[in-house]
Amino acid sequence: MHVSTIKQMEQYARENSGVISLSQGIPYMGSDPSIRDEVVYSIMQNKVDAYSDPQGLVELRDAISQKLQKDEKRYSPHEILITTGAVEAMAATLLAITTPGDEVIIPTPTYVSFFQITKTASLRAITLPLQEDKNWTLDCDLLESIITAKTKAIILCNPNNPTGSIYDKKTLLAITELAEKYNFFIIIDEVYKNMLYEDSKMYSITTDNKFKERIITIVSFSKDFSLTGWRVGFLYTSSALINMILPVHDTLVNCAPVISQYAALAALKDDERIIAAHLDAYREQRNIVESYLQKLTEYISWYKPQGSYFFFPKLLIQKDDSQFCLDLLQKQKLAIVPGSAFGPGGEGHVRICFGRNKADIIKGMERFVAYCNAL
Amino acid sequence: MHVSTIKQMEQYARENSGVISLSQGIPYMGSDPSIRDEVVYSIMQNKVDAYSDPQGLVELRDAISQKLQKDEKRYSPHEILITTGAVEAMAATLLAITTPGDEVIIPTPTYVSFFQITKTASLRAITLPLQEDKNWTLDCDLLESIITAKTKAIILCNPNNPTGSIYDKKTLLAITELAEKYNFFIIIDEVYKNMLYEDSKMYSITTDNKFKERIITIVSFSKDFSLTGWRVGFLYTSSALINMILPVHDTLVNCAPVISQYAALAALKDDERIIAAHLDAYREQRNIVESYLQKLTEYISWYKPQGSYFFFPKLLIQKDDSQFCLDLLQKQKLAIVPGSAFGPGGEGHVRICFGRNKADIIKGMERFVAYCNAL
Repeated sequence: MHVSTIKQMEQYARENSGVISLSQGIPYMGSDPSIRDEVVYSIMQNKVDAYSDPQGLVELRDAISQKLQKDEKRYSPHEILITTGAVEAMAATLLAITTPGDEVIIPTPTYVSFFQITKTASLRAITLPLQEDKNWTLDCDLLESIITAKTKAIILCNPNNPTGSIYDKKTLLAITELAEKYNFFIIIDEVYKNMLYEDSKMYSITTDNKFKERIITIVSFSKDFSLTGWRVGFLYTSSALINMILPVHDTLVNCAPVISQYAALAALKDDERIIAAHLDAYREQRNIVESYLQKLTEYISWYKPQGSYFFFPKLLIQKDDSQFCLDLLQKQKLAIVPGSAFGPGGEGHVRICFGRNKADIIKGMERFVAYCNAL
Repeated sequence: MHVSTIKQMEQYARENSGVISLSQGIPYMGSDPSIRDEVVYSIMQNKVDAYSDPQGLVELRDAISQKLQKDEKRYSPHEILITTGAVEAMAATLLAITTPGDEVIIPTPTYVSFFQITKTASLRAITLPLQEDKNWTLDCDLLESIITAKTKAIILCNPNNPTGSIYDKKTLLAITELAEKYNFFIIIDEVYKNMLYEDSKMYSITTDNKFKERIITIVSFSKDFSLTGWRVGFLYTSSALINMILPVHDTLVNCAPVISQYAALAALKDDERIIAAHLDAYREQRNIVESYLQKLTEYISWYKPQGSYFFFPKLLIQKDDSQFCLDLLQKQKLAIVPGSAFGPGGEGHVRICFGRNKADIIKGMERFVAYCNAL
């Protein structure tokens, strides 16, 4: 097992001057001043030095519970677990609910970390290629055909990284029916849930309480609030599942960093304003990237992302995505991610992040255009 | 699996007014002002919002490498991994170097989290009771007798929590010889390495480079610098092992919280002063606790701890440690930890933490004396 291609790209960009990176999903904006003020205040009030309750600060779980209620999701503070980012939530969940050898279904292409954590937990990742020709939708008949007695869970990333696509209500309900029928869990990574464009709507199956025992939803503060370095996120599910996941979380990290929990608390106090400001910037940057891609219709094809901050264009000429990215890096000093890093169906594509800063995006896309035009 | 007895005790104390807790090892002092200043500066300099390199900030690994060199340990920044506290270091290490079903030898009584993480990683914990009558030393013949073909590692806590004992040079070298002979890893948790009393000396086998490929040493910033809530620690080993552990660390937490990495960096800038100040306080509090215990020689016996901030007295009359602790909590509102939580050999003992604040220690020990005298 190696550190992901994404991080290798990012590291290369960090260590080699002149390289522009549109690879790792790092929001370019700094954290909001209101968050920083609250954090400094918490330090001075001696609130952050000692461990918190392993489940997380009660105030933070209260605040999350209230926010969820606004979205018609009824989860009490006991049904919420504060984690060291979304990846720790995923790790704790999988390690808690599975036994080595279990199968986990992963629709692909998707977030590369899902493969790493299934491997770490000694699970079998059963990949299910999404239908690219239908904007990366999931074929539920195909899903049913790969379910076995060992299927313990399906992992959905919604909106999906790297495709920027969203699972529709019908598909989500069909997956839930299959989960009921064959008795497996649904783990939903909703890290990009607040990054939706135009009239994209995201349906959430967790509004229906009857599936609570079966669905674990994972959310992060990293992307919406530019807090990737702070490592704080949460999950919500039934209290029975929380009781299974909490001891594993406790043994992995003890508790989420307390200072970051206060950052999250501050973020939620003014979340609508902060998220809207981020989204305005991403919307503009999404249009900028597309304006460049439109110059390249003979080299690539793409779907405009409904959510997230990624484009995932298909390569029409130089189809070897790894070679493409390496060449691009060498010739134009632009780091983006080869699609094959995201699992079956990802090969022959590249991922471009438009969450980075605008100047980098413009300069990067000019390099991208120059590279393609020289193919 | 449940959240540990220690944390249950701590939570009970937190939620019930009037209860004094000498249970969880939470240093009572706040973080040093120099650390806070540096952290605030890092926030304002926009340094903490984005992910760091998964392995950790280069500056921090450089600083650690230099500190290790002062102790005659030669580890380059590439051989150091910054983690989300010591528990994540342990989790990442075990998940990286083992396969489900492997055996891990754990001398007991010891830190309860070791049992939880072996369970989480689907490993078999093979406990090896320490010799209480020889101040909790390890019998190397007994160790050799329980080694099997499935033995993958031994976990040593040095100084040991909860016994406060230190493994001597002879024992450590004998363990290393066995590790060489039977080909297993040695994971050393040195979280309390800077909390040594009187003329206690700690020998470290990592000064000899020839064992580098076999030994993973785990250190935390939590205890020495009162940074438990910040979740930052590190491990050092060979770069071959780092390359195995790093991807697992990456999939568990992505990177250690960046703000906490800056806190750690600040801590190392003035570590001798900060550690000395802590140690002065602990030394005094250790004497205070012992002065109370000396009033109870008919009820308990104990070794004065060589390291750590725990006493682990043996109960001579009411020998059921769980019952003892529950009664003590109900009758005197004092929370301490039953010894059976720390594995075989721990039963019939209780753990008292003297790292908490002095007023609590005095009030708590008065309650402890009052409870024993009423037995």
